[in-house]
Amino acid sequence: MCGGSKEDTPIQGPLFARKFNTVDSFDTHADIPRYFKKMDSIGRKNKHVSIISAGWDPGIFSLERVLGDAFLPDNKSYTFWGPGVSQGHSDAARKVEGVIDARQYTLPLDNALIAVRNGETPDFSKREMHKRLVYVLVEEGADRKRIRKEIVEMPNYYAEYNTEVKFITKEEMLKSHSGLPHGGFVLTSGLTGKSKQILEYQCKLESNPDFTGSVLVACARAAFRLQQLGHNGAFTMLDIPPALFSPHSGDVLRSRFM
Amino acid sequence: MCGGSKEDTPIQGPLFARKFNTVDSFDTHADIPRYFKKMDSIGRKNKHVSIISAGWDPGIFSLERVLGDAFLPDNKSYTFWGPGVSQGHSDAARKVEGVIDARQYTLPLDNALIAVRNGETPDFSKREMHKRLVYVLVEEGADRKRIRKEIVEMPNYYAEYNTEVKFITKEEMLKSHSGLPHGGFVLTSGLTGKSKQILEYQCKLESNPDFTGSVLVACARAAFRLQQLGHNGAFTMLDIPPALFSPHSGDVLRSRFM
Repeated sequence: MCGGSKEDTPIQGPLFARKFNTVDSFDTHADIPRYFKKMDSIGRKNKHVSIISAGWDPGIFSLERVLGDAFLPDNKSYTFWGPGVSQGHSDAARKVEGVIDARQYTLPLDNALIAVRNGETPDFSKREMHKRLVYVLVEEGADRKRIRKEIVEMPNYYAEYNTEVKFITKEEMLKSHSGLPHGGFVLTSGLTGKSKQILEYQCKLESNPDFTGSVLVACARAAFRLQQLGHNGAFTMLDIPPALFSPHSGDVLRSRFM
Repeated sequence: MCGGSKEDTPIQGPLFARKFNTVDSFDTHADIPRYFKKMDSIGRKNKHVSIISAGWDPGIFSLERVLGDAFLPDNKSYTFWGPGVSQGHSDAARKVEGVIDARQYTLPLDNALIAVRNGETPDFSKREMHKRLVYVLVEEGADRKRIRKEIVEMPNYYAEYNTEVKFITKEEMLKSHSGLPHGGFVLTSGLTGKSKQILEYQCKLESNPDFTGSVLVACARAAFRLQQLGHNGAFTMLDIPPALFSPHSGDVLRSRFM
């Protein structure tokens, strides 16, 4: 299930978990604990496995945050997103009057990334970690000054960031901004004794939905195997032995991947 | 158990697994399948959990290789090591006549890393992925030309790489080369449909042994919990739900790390 987390998955998840093992990409971070409890109770009652909130964030990035925190005792963790298209922010810009289409790129700020990589452990504001770049196609004769102002000052979406707005043509929108690339970084910087240790995970995706779909397929392998092993209830990617995501057997993994 | 993989762990592992849950850093990659079987049978018989081959490679890097392969269907994977000190290669250089001390740095080659990051999927020779830099302290009056030649032509250790040898003083060795930094990269480059997707994991360690020790401690948490859950036998880091490495409860992980 890869529908919307607002109206689709909260209905479809509980419905299908009564009849099947399920995998979903529920990504409203704050609601995951509650959704987990609901899916867990339905799964246990009906002897099905439900893997929830799979994908890259939540999903792989969650996994990397947990591993970084588990391996480095005195740590600070940072998640950067981008460069890539945020669909929620693009939608928000599209709702401004006079806007026909918009594409928002989230960009991690190099200086912030470099500081963390160098072993510094700063406290960043949102503005210091990411900036936003919005390509906008407007109606003929639209008031560009007003549109720019409405976008950059939009609360929750843009006001807390430095935002650049670029007006482009329909052709340019179609030619250069049709894809949905995305990506990001999870960095954990920690100390073991006196030694600074830094773990960094990065994904660079030409297609965010393609990759998310691929992660969900790997989770489907795991869901089947978990049920075969006698498990039921809800799981996140944190609760699953990584070997169960793999198409290969334990023997192959030990001889070729260890 | 963090002794040597040649003579310590193969004896100590089976011995202690009869009496205790164990965690070890056995790192002879080719012997892992056989060692796993032995530890698995002892663990099952005595109802103990043995986590074998923990650390960063084998260990976390193995995990990242498996995840990259599981999530990207049509993939190619690369592991780069360094920049960092290889203790085995340093020991080998130390055995050359006239050498008092030696420190070998394994260096990943930037061009190779950049090619993979750019989405190319080349077939590299060993020489094309890494070079070796050896700092050597020699006896007074030693034949430096012969020593350099013996090092760079040493089979298995140096002959397959471009190796640079630098002669330094005792003071320089003590001042600049007392630490055991290490690190490396696991990259998986794959296709989902037509989209190129690249996953990269990196660790940058000021102290290799400190970090390995810290990973083994996280595994000790998992070993205890696995036994509490009724498991026994051998496990690699591929077989363990990541949440079990963490000091935090499932509730905390779902609300703060997902």
